[in-house]
Amino acid sequence: MSKEDVGITASKKDDFSEWYTQVVLKAKLADYAPVKGFIVLRPDGYSIWESIVKTLDAKFAKRGIRNGFLPVLIPESLLRKEKKHFAGLNPEVFWVTHSGDNEIGDKLALRPTSETLAYSLYSKWINSWRDLPLKMNFWNTALRAEIKGTKPFLRTSEFLWQEGHTVHATQEEAEKEVMAILDIYKKTVEDDLAIPVLTGKKSESEKFVGAVYTTTMESIMPDGKALQMGTSHFLGQNFSKPFEVKYSDKNNVENFAWQTSWGVSWRWIGAMIMTHGDDKGLVLPPKVAPIQVVIVPIYYNEKDEQTVLQKTKEIQKSLQEQNIRVFVDERKELTPGYKFNDWELKGVPLRVEVGPKDIEKQKVVLVKRYNKEKQDLSFFDISKIQNVLDDIQKEMLAAARKILDEMIIDVSDYSQFKSAIEKGGFLRSFWCGKEQCEEKIKEETGADIRVIPFDADDSSGKCVYCSNQSESKVIFAHGY
Amino acid sequence: MSKEDVGITASKKDDFSEWYTQVVLKAKLADYAPVKGFIVLRPDGYSIWESIVKTLDAKFAKRGIRNGFLPVLIPESLLRKEKKHFAGLNPEVFWVTHSGDNEIGDKLALRPTSETLAYSLYSKWINSWRDLPLKMNFWNTALRAEIKGTKPFLRTSEFLWQEGHTVHATQEEAEKEVMAILDIYKKTVEDDLAIPVLTGKKSESEKFVGAVYTTTMESIMPDGKALQMGTSHFLGQNFSKPFEVKYSDKNNVENFAWQTSWGVSWRWIGAMIMTHGDDKGLVLPPKVAPIQVVIVPIYYNEKDEQTVLQKTKEIQKSLQEQNIRVFVDERKELTPGYKFNDWELKGVPLRVEVGPKDIEKQKVVLVKRYNKEKQDLSFFDISKIQNVLDDIQKEMLAAARKILDEMIIDVSDYSQFKSAIEKGGFLRSFWCGKEQCEEKIKEETGADIRVIPFDADDSSGKCVYCSNQSESKVIFAHGY
Repeated sequence: MSKEDVGITASKKDDFSEWYTQVVLKAKLADYAPVKGFIVLRPDGYSIWESIVKTLDAKFAKRGIRNGFLPVLIPESLLRKEKKHFAGLNPEVFWVTHSGDNEIGDKLALRPTSETLAYSLYSKWINSWRDLPLKMNFWNTALRAEIKGTKPFLRTSEFLWQEGHTVHATQEEAEKEVMAILDIYKKTVEDDLAIPVLTGKKSESEKFVGAVYTTTMESIMPDGKALQMGTSHFLGQNFSKPFEVKYSDKNNVENFAWQTSWGVSWRWIGAMIMTHGDDKGLVLPPKVAPIQVVIVPIYYNEKDEQTVLQKTKEIQKSLQEQNIRVFVDERKELTPGYKFNDWELKGVPLRVEVGPKDIEKQKVVLVKRYNKEKQDLSFFDISKIQNVLDDIQKEMLAAARKILDEMIIDVSDYSQFKSAIEKGGFLRSFWCGKEQCEEKIKEETGADIRVIPFDADDSSGKCVYCSNQSESKVIFAHGY
Repeated sequence: MSKEDVGITASKKDDFSEWYTQVVLKAKLADYAPVKGFIVLRPDGYSIWESIVKTLDAKFAKRGIRNGFLPVLIPESLLRKEKKHFAGLNPEVFWVTHSGDNEIGDKLALRPTSETLAYSLYSKWINSWRDLPLKMNFWNTALRAEIKGTKPFLRTSEFLWQEGHTVHATQEEAEKEVMAILDIYKKTVEDDLAIPVLTGKKSESEKFVGAVYTTTMESIMPDGKALQMGTSHFLGQNFSKPFEVKYSDKNNVENFAWQTSWGVSWRWIGAMIMTHGDDKGLVLPPKVAPIQVVIVPIYYNEKDEQTVLQKTKEIQKSLQEQNIRVFVDERKELTPGYKFNDWELKGVPLRVEVGPKDIEKQKVVLVKRYNKEKQDLSFFDISKIQNVLDDIQKEMLAAARKILDEMIIDVSDYSQFKSAIEKGGFLRSFWCGKEQCEEKIKEETGADIRVIPFDADDSSGKCVYCSNQSESKVIFAHGY
């Protein structure tokens, strides 16, 4: 094995797309499945997803949200029940038409999303106000045939996600849920994956078909394109009416319920790779890294071997006692240099080097993956490695936030807009709120409104397209 | 709400099938999906599955098995690659033929099992002895069109399961893995679900198509029918040859690898319902119960209400601190009697009753769900409730094991066999090992060989069918 066989050969700056694919495959996160547009997760990739699941699950549970299971097949007749919803989905639906050699009457869709299935059940399960709120979440996959530009984690025909579906007695309670979930998403993606996001609403034309409104969080990738990182929808009574999700209140009066739905997917992993990775490979934030610390023993003769390996085992034990996910790379046939490259490719957040000279000085060498910073750490401070990991986590978020902030560009003039959008990034401009201007901008520049931020200042100005008076600034970008 | 609306109206003894369905639906574990043969899990049902997942995951991890993700769609051409395997599966396969309005060229199977997909990938991932063993597990669903006699958790067209697929350098190591996994299954289903099982091998005609041999564990249900509770297959090189799962050994010689596959499903939940449930409803073993202890406050005036509710909160807090899953039923509009029935229906293992007279005597009343046993417990012994739960767990297994033992009947004569099999149970008989006798018995009595036990004594005798000399006793039964 030579270094060239396994290392990344494309540059993140010069060939972002090729670089991304190489990192995914060579860090062994995922591989292509035999059907075009589908991927497989290898253990390190799935482990990151498991971390995300664990964190979100705990936060959902605190809000009284419980998990369930829904089948992957939905009859066409049910999927057609909410017409706009169906029209939006249909071109991407996989259809099952046969079981064995027999044709199926009402053909079956592979779940593109489960609103119709969940709500047909909810209408049976909910009778009175005592049954509310009903808050359920489903960890499963969704299937949508993607023909063009498929990319691991970002655009695949089947993707791992969670879909939450809640039902409430009042509009107010449902809207609170929408916001609480978006807040959970934002905190988790920022705290665990170190990816900063902007939050706000989608415009009418970009919202989930079937929602009253869609809240979203958006991130910007190093190539200047925006990535939608999660959505939380206020469905109002749009589904409760056709699906008859009704409850009797305390006065025994029947009412249609208020609903929400929300989801995030393994796209988070794609965003993490793009945000933090470099030309040496993957860079993982400690909280989601399958291995947080790798210890590399360094020795060149048998006498040193014993001393060094004994020390690395000691350190390993001490870190395990602190619940740090640690691995000692004792592979004999490989040089320390090869090992460094290997673990850098895999993105392990912190490397601990232990050689005979270090042992003499009663210290180890720490190397942070994300910025290659080296520091000595005394044997007596091994317990501080958790602090170093916490620092890395925070520093990675801060570094990414700085880049995000720099990529938000205020633009007030349309010709400036047109040249700025070529360079990528988030363009912040006044928009009059008319769909016509939004459409024209999309037509002429390819950029759409990614998010109408919650925290926009309350100034007013001229719409970047039509120059009419506008009350709010919105964020435009080219999207993934 | 009257008691009759919610309670179980069928008797387990007189109408087992109707009783089972009522327990599943009324205890709100599952519900029917719109497509026949498919079910949905509600939070309490899914929570039991999550318990199983958590326990098995921890045990798999200790053996170095890691989780991954495989897509649900497999191209027909790949599925056909191992011919016997395909022939065994095909009548039950769901086929995707269209995406949107477009026909798909090579039609796609919904995963009936993932051997073919996993091994086509393994052949890429494995090059040298350094890549072995490769031990992966996948938590997903499998899809097999079931037309007749579908039943929640026992026979459904989609089921939650795990499928493990390991690759080893030597036959010996692979065979050890097969047995280690079967042992994990047996311990988990006995320790956590309190369901005793017999373990052994399947006969040639009952083994997994494509395996060299199949090890199995079998349980017996109260209606006298056997239920297969999990299988662990030694695949030998049956798949590694057609799929070219090869590795170079230390001498750089290429070898075909040795493989195993193994799985258990949510069928465990069905077996648990049948084994432990009674005419009042579900009975849950403490280890998998979503709620382990329910506290019911009992009071008939406002003065008592305060005192009682304060006490129940105290007990709740103390149990939570011990990580016991506890719920206080404070619903005001319902009587204690109604609540007792409700929690009995849901199978909560232990009920704690707290009334004003109990408080005077500084004690509570405990009621075990599985045998209705009542006992007083002093306030000062609240910390012993975990011990009571541990006792329940053990007692439930012991009770079930006693029943299993009673249902194993030694039969040496074929006319006795024919009348005994009508009553159900495991019939233990000598069998000469010939497929012909096995087939004849199946034809004439409907019973098949469920398991060739590992721990059969080494006596010899006459085959129950042909009277030829036989070296081993096997277990016959009618199966689910």
